[in-house]
Amino acid sequence: MASIFSRIVAGEIPSWKVAENECCYAFLDIAPLAEGHTLVIPKKEVDYLFDLDPETYRKLWDFAAKVARAQKAALPCKRIGVAVLGMEVPHAHIHLVPLQSEADLDFRKPKLELKPERFAEIAQAIALEFDKQ
Amino acid sequence: MASIFSRIVAGEIPSWKVAENECCYAFLDIAPLAEGHTLVIPKKEVDYLFDLDPETYRKLWDFAAKVARAQKAALPCKRIGVAVLGMEVPHAHIHLVPLQSEADLDFRKPKLELKPERFAEIAQAIALEFDKQ
Repeated sequence: MASIFSRIVAGEIPSWKVAENECCYAFLDIAPLAEGHTLVIPKKEVDYLFDLDPETYRKLWDFAAKVARAQKAALPCKRIGVAVLGMEVPHAHIHLVPLQSEADLDFRKPKLELKPERFAEIAQAIALEFDKQ
Repeated sequence: MASIFSRIVAGEIPSWKVAENECCYAFLDIAPLAEGHTLVIPKKEVDYLFDLDPETYRKLWDFAAKVARAQKAALPCKRIGVAVLGMEVPHAHIHLVPLQSEADLDFRKPKLELKPERFAEIAQAIALEFDKQ
C-alpha cells in the first residue's frame, strides 16, 4: 500500500504544498514545531534515508537546501534546523524547522495549532521565495 | 580565530576520529545522546549549513551517508537519526545519532558519560566499517 506521503504526492490526500520538482516534494507539517515547519520527501517511496540511491539522495538534499533558503527568506527565524527521525512514517522525510533557538528543535514540545488560513499563507510565502531561488 | 572544530581537524585539539576525506571530517560527540553519536563537518569553516557552496554541501552529505552506514553496521541500532541545529559552534555540523526510538534524538536528555576506552572502541569500530563502504 502507498505510504501516506505517496498519497499526498499523488494528490489523494491534500497538503499545504511548498515546492515540488521531478523527484521531490515539500509540504507543511500539519503538527508543526514552529510556523513554516516543512517536510521534504523524495517521490520515490523508500523507508530509510540512507537506503536511497545516490542520485535521489543528492537531489533530495539539493532540493532541501533550496526549500530551507526559501523558508529563511519567508519567515522570521535565525536559521533552519534539520532533523531526520523517520520511524513513524515508512517514507524518508527531512524536517526543516525555522529556529529562533536550539530548543525549538524539540519533538516532545506541544505542537502549534494553526488555522487553515495561516497554513495557506505560510505555504504561499515559502513557495513564492522558492520560485526566486 | 579558528573554530573549535577547525582546531580538531588541524589536530590541535584531540578527537575520537571516525573518518576523514579531502573535504570532511567525522568524530565522536564527547557528550553523546547515544553510543556512536558522531559529528560530521566540512573542513571549510562555514557557520551555517545552507551557506556552504554547492560542491562542499554535496560532498558533506555524501560523506555523512557513508558514515551513517558505517555506524549502523558497527552499532546495535534501528537506524541513524540526523540533526543539524548549529547555534552553539559557528561551524556547520551534522549530528548522526544511532537510534532505538524517535525519543533518542532529544537534545535535552542527559548526555551519556563514557570512559575514554569506550570512546576509543566505538570510534575504531565505526572507522573499520567506514573503510569497508
